[in-house]
Amino acid sequence: MNKKLVVIGGDAAGMSAASKVRREKPGWEIVVFEKSPHTSYAACGIPYYIADQVKQSESLIARTPETFIKDYQIQAKVNHEVLQIDPENRRILVKNLKSEATFWETYDELLIATGAAPILPDLPGIDATGVFSLSTLQSGIEARAYIDLNIPKKAVIVGGGYIGVEMAEALLDRDMHVTLVDRSSQLMRTLDPDMAILLADYMAENGIMLYMDESLTKIPTDGKGKVRQVETNKRKLEADVVIIGIGITPRSDLAKTAGLKLGDSGAILVNRHMRTSVNHIWAAGDCATSYHILREEETFRALGTIANKQGLVAGSNICGEKIEFPGIVGTAITKFLDMEIARTGLSESEAKEMNLEYDTSAIKSSNVASYYPGSAPIHVKLLARKDNKRIIGGQIVGFKGSAKRIDTIAAAIMGKLTTFDLAFMDLSYAPPFSGVWDPVQIAARRLL
Amino acid sequence: MNKKLVVIGGDAAGMSAASKVRREKPGWEIVVFEKSPHTSYAACGIPYYIADQVKQSESLIARTPETFIKDYQIQAKVNHEVLQIDPENRRILVKNLKSEATFWETYDELLIATGAAPILPDLPGIDATGVFSLSTLQSGIEARAYIDLNIPKKAVIVGGGYIGVEMAEALLDRDMHVTLVDRSSQLMRTLDPDMAILLADYMAENGIMLYMDESLTKIPTDGKGKVRQVETNKRKLEADVVIIGIGITPRSDLAKTAGLKLGDSGAILVNRHMRTSVNHIWAAGDCATSYHILREEETFRALGTIANKQGLVAGSNICGEKIEFPGIVGTAITKFLDMEIARTGLSESEAKEMNLEYDTSAIKSSNVASYYPGSAPIHVKLLARKDNKRIIGGQIVGFKGSAKRIDTIAAAIMGKLTTFDLAFMDLSYAPPFSGVWDPVQIAARRLL
Repeated sequence: MNKKLVVIGGDAAGMSAASKVRREKPGWEIVVFEKSPHTSYAACGIPYYIADQVKQSESLIARTPETFIKDYQIQAKVNHEVLQIDPENRRILVKNLKSEATFWETYDELLIATGAAPILPDLPGIDATGVFSLSTLQSGIEARAYIDLNIPKKAVIVGGGYIGVEMAEALLDRDMHVTLVDRSSQLMRTLDPDMAILLADYMAENGIMLYMDESLTKIPTDGKGKVRQVETNKRKLEADVVIIGIGITPRSDLAKTAGLKLGDSGAILVNRHMRTSVNHIWAAGDCATSYHILREEETFRALGTIANKQGLVAGSNICGEKIEFPGIVGTAITKFLDMEIARTGLSESEAKEMNLEYDTSAIKSSNVASYYPGSAPIHVKLLARKDNKRIIGGQIVGFKGSAKRIDTIAAAIMGKLTTFDLAFMDLSYAPPFSGVWDPVQIAARRLL
Repeated sequence: MNKKLVVIGGDAAGMSAASKVRREKPGWEIVVFEKSPHTSYAACGIPYYIADQVKQSESLIARTPETFIKDYQIQAKVNHEVLQIDPENRRILVKNLKSEATFWETYDELLIATGAAPILPDLPGIDATGVFSLSTLQSGIEARAYIDLNIPKKAVIVGGGYIGVEMAEALLDRDMHVTLVDRSSQLMRTLDPDMAILLADYMAENGIMLYMDESLTKIPTDGKGKVRQVETNKRKLEADVVIIGIGITPRSDLAKTAGLKLGDSGAILVNRHMRTSVNHIWAAGDCATSYHILREEETFRALGTIANKQGLVAGSNICGEKIEFPGIVGTAITKFLDMEIARTGLSESEAKEMNLEYDTSAIKSSNVASYYPGSAPIHVKLLARKDNKRIIGGQIVGFKGSAKRIDTIAAAIMGKLTTFDLAFMDLSYAPPFSGVWDPVQIAARRLL
């Protein structure tokens, strides 16, 4: 029997699911409502677009609404906001943002893939012209247009997480004087302090002014509502452009209002099949919880990789297949100029929070054979459980070719491998790629 | 009770073992006999030294005999050849190659780490001046000196394995016209033909003249015994320098004569503790067998990574610890100019030879996000068992950042992970490092 699938949100998770259902169920009707003008874009590419490393915003779009309509027979309706979910009558209330008309749309199966929204502190000037928080492609296009037009000289970034670090590189690339303010005492709090400091030092060496332990209090503007300064609890900073990257929150209001259960994080609670607590309603991507294999609980992690995988799992199960999302281990990667940063599994603070007894090692080695041209430092940190010696976490900070090694550690965690297994694993070696003991294995040996 | 350890061979395996024993047993006497003038050098770095990418041969030496004597109290005796092992009396016959004196040296424990020797066909001209087979640092120093002095214009490489491919890059770097001859129909026979052809095409595009299915028959020389040509069964090639890289064979003659059991490959048969068939005699590195986890048998694989690990295992067990060498899965990596090549696990031909039922997928994707600057092709091939869906092999050919991904596949094999596990594994993603589905996962999904 042919069904009608309605999807709220036309980016990674929503479109992965819609595409999967289309492949498996050619006869089904599939309708996607997307609030913004864009579908299936790479939000993670926005900093590189603003940096002008990626020239065209179109490059970030994997598939346009027109492609979905024409090649996939998926009715991808952009500029359509969903206002309400009515689970009892299996219908949603939709607003066409261009015509302002509202209408009810029925569904047999509904997938919520509304993503996450940047957290914006309720402070004077937060809405000023020249203040950007980057989450949608539209916000990236607007930020870049503003920079292209105004050629700002002084940038202040609030928040030292992934977006803050990536935007620091981007704005440095655009010849700005960049200041980064973070209310905590370290950058990248998903890393341990001993690893995060390596990045902070490198950023400082490369001209980023870092003010840690400082909170944003106000964004003073000029007479026309344009950003002029950033005020913290400690100082005033001149600013022509401001990036707010202090965190994100799942867009789960629609789901909450409709009575769906949320997780502790506020994300829509899903099971391993991506089913929500309400029949015929599924959720996937940044708005939904992700099962964490090491924490053994549902968590909130907003990442494109997870969104794509969850979308595929949701789509498969909507079609009647039985696939479980195996879960995440908290893998992430980024870079600042030539320095690469990656992490997976548990950090020390997470392990402590879980009351796990663990051992840790941190080593410095070289990314390629020490005598090979271009050899540069790599730092690897590992965590292993004291009881069964299993690897439970890894962090890498280093230069060219360093960070993708995190996948070896992620695979070791997924395979429940021990310190010994990792130390003696048959990893690849040739002088242009590694020393004879891969740095990951040097760290593992240190734990033995 | 303090013992006396004697080691035959002062490179990776021998010195790893000696160093481990020294750390654990400060009171033991440790004597190492090494035929060449060098200890602990990176044989894998020789092509990059000949290419002049590495400037000094000293850079390839991790520790000199003087360092071992002074800092480790290890009597590292270079230019000493061992002529005979007498297990009954626990002694070996040693020749000082400088003084030509011979003497008996007793041992409590003996480690054989004699490495492997290049295979040289018994053909006219094989000993000509300008013909090199690269195995020891000394042979690399001689080859480079010859090239620096004679500035050859035309090079012929015989053999298209790792050494042949790496030397093709090296000699191209030295501005030579390079021809490569191989008697088989494909380069790199540890890869499947569909992957090897990608490399062959790239080498041809970059000026390497490839003659496949041709055998070396003769090396004609000039009146002074210097190489002039290379003759194959099909043609004559002008040559100022010739590199022979058709394979290697374990140096196990000493062991064989002393009555030690050899494996089918001719390598010294060892158990997982690196014990040979004779009491108090151990073997490790290129001269010894390596347990292959997927083939479930002892094999012969001469690689620096394995030698280092086996040396460490041998040293640990000689000290009385009980450590098992977990085995190998056949991981290897190299590059030619910008093209990176890696493999792990079983190739199709190996799987067929084992009568395994398997599925395979081969995909082409991009090394980083397709829109990110520098994006270039990566090809990934995977093999999985039909019955339990476990990953049993992987091959990668691609550009910058491609090949080290082989470690993720190696870890998946070691962790006995399935196609599904790999496809949905939490691998790292950011545009400068990968697409949102890592190419390895795209290949895994194709297998689902």
